[in-house]
Amino acid sequence: MKTDDYFQGLKNKNRAILGQAITLIESSLPNDSILKDNLLEKCIPHSGTSMRIGVSGSPGVGKSTFIEKLGLLLLKKKKKIAVLAIDPSSSVSQGSILGDKTRMTELANNDNVFIRPSPNRGSLGGICESTQDTIILCEASGYDIVIVETVGVGQSETIAESITDVFIYLTLIENGDEIQFIKKGIIELSDLIIINKSDQDIKKANQTKMVLEHNINLSHHKLKSVFTCSSLHNQNIDVIWNHIIDLYKKRNNNGTLIKKRKQQRFSWVQEIIINKIKNQIINDDEIQSLIIKYENKSNHSIRKIAEKIIKKLLK
Amino acid sequence: MKTDDYFQGLKNKNRAILGQAITLIESSLPNDSILKDNLLEKCIPHSGTSMRIGVSGSPGVGKSTFIEKLGLLLLKKKKKIAVLAIDPSSSVSQGSILGDKTRMTELANNDNVFIRPSPNRGSLGGICESTQDTIILCEASGYDIVIVETVGVGQSETIAESITDVFIYLTLIENGDEIQFIKKGIIELSDLIIINKSDQDIKKANQTKMVLEHNINLSHHKLKSVFTCSSLHNQNIDVIWNHIIDLYKKRNNNGTLIKKRKQQRFSWVQEIIINKIKNQIINDDEIQSLIIKYENKSNHSIRKIAEKIIKKLLK
Repeated sequence: MKTDDYFQGLKNKNRAILGQAITLIESSLPNDSILKDNLLEKCIPHSGTSMRIGVSGSPGVGKSTFIEKLGLLLLKKKKKIAVLAIDPSSSVSQGSILGDKTRMTELANNDNVFIRPSPNRGSLGGICESTQDTIILCEASGYDIVIVETVGVGQSETIAESITDVFIYLTLIENGDEIQFIKKGIIELSDLIIINKSDQDIKKANQTKMVLEHNINLSHHKLKSVFTCSSLHNQNIDVIWNHIIDLYKKRNNNGTLIKKRKQQRFSWVQEIIINKIKNQIINDDEIQSLIIKYENKSNHSIRKIAEKIIKKLLK
Repeated sequence: MKTDDYFQGLKNKNRAILGQAITLIESSLPNDSILKDNLLEKCIPHSGTSMRIGVSGSPGVGKSTFIEKLGLLLLKKKKKIAVLAIDPSSSVSQGSILGDKTRMTELANNDNVFIRPSPNRGSLGGICESTQDTIILCEASGYDIVIVETVGVGQSETIAESITDVFIYLTLIENGDEIQFIKKGIIELSDLIIINKSDQDIKKANQTKMVLEHNINLSHHKLKSVFTCSSLHNQNIDVIWNHIIDLYKKRNNNGTLIKKRKQQRFSWVQEIIINKIKNQIINDDEIQSLIIKYENKSNHSIRKIAEKIIKKLLK
């Protein structure tokens, strides 16, 4: 297929061609590189149109059920929904937590839904880069809502937040005094924190909510909200959606959405530059032999060795 | 003080001057830079002599008590011990989990022990770079054992492992079916996994040990070991030490220790180069205005923008 075939397929809302276009985007074959760039450049003027929602949380927290129930609500509102997964484990184990075909069965069978599991090759950074490009393809193909799902392990939440407009973190009921240490960083990232499976113990769920809200107030993040929710029993999904849409509209109207996306693109350009240089350092024989050369002069501190190489490397 | 004053102080095993030399190493003042380099270059030929042990684990797992008991055992064996802390939270909150003066009181009052809390300024990468230099100073000052303590949050375990010879991870009793998802990565890093506070429920502690050993066997990491331990009651500390020393000797004799340290230095040189370039990209007005310029040509994919800038940046 040529650039125009892909592009027309996307414009015609052909899901099979969207799938193939994403495979092209994820390809690391040098031959695909020009085709990839051309397709993206055709799509970029048609992109930026969707609401991009990040959904993260630990394994077992109920992300799939939450996304399925939210998705079914959005289908009633005549939205077209794409669900993309970033799964940091799949790049290591070749397994895939998020790629399971049995998930979101009700959603998956609808013509207005496109679900794409995480690519199981490449670094987390690389997967993320292709996910951003995938968002562009989905938008060019008319999807209103793009949900980026990620397992909350390591850095993947940070990355999901850095490519979406609204970031949702799912958690479970916890005993008040056991709120995990790691939550601090996640509170920083999240727009909404959702205590899923709240039906299991609504009293404790409300306690968890109170503790989280207390922590948020302590950190002066007045714009964050905490919700209890039961995805299984469809409780509060509509309330949460109304909150998301309000937040999105507010940000759209006061200009912070455009600013946020611009800042995201800016950060990503920087990130890609750094990654490319990193690869260059690791794969360039000349640089590697320079490192060895300086290393062997053993009374140089590693900082000094680094400085000498940078001088040789940069213009 | 001049380079020679610092260096003589270190050689004379003067703990006050060691402390001042570390403060110099941690300094980011441009004026200190030459003095810093000169001191390191004088110390490097006298370094590499200690056993470097990394100790990590979540807050509350009992790292301080474990290090104190291990340290007291080592003092009986006539060792000189330095304990250095890497605390990722201190760089954010300016607070310091590991800097608490009331910790390790018995150890701290001994003349053959030097304890240094984490610097509470700078990035994690920066703190780590200075910790490596601090190891060199401690070795030049005659410390046989350098323990690098880090809170097991985020990337700090990876960093601690990357600057030590033997890496120990402390954990607590867990129910067999609840072994946390995140453990996988930690198992990869660890030479010893220690189930601390085992006296609280020795049966469950042994179960946790079995599950962990099972997981390790599944991953074919035959060289890793799991121990139960009660730091509080001094149970198994000697057994653990014997294991550490055996492992260290084996690695020393078969050449893997030298190879590991060389590889660590090599990785760190790369890391520092990448960080310097990263700072350069972020702080260089010309590069930033280039990014903006390409960004505004809005149908360029971010990858293409990045490529154009790299061409301008590198020789």
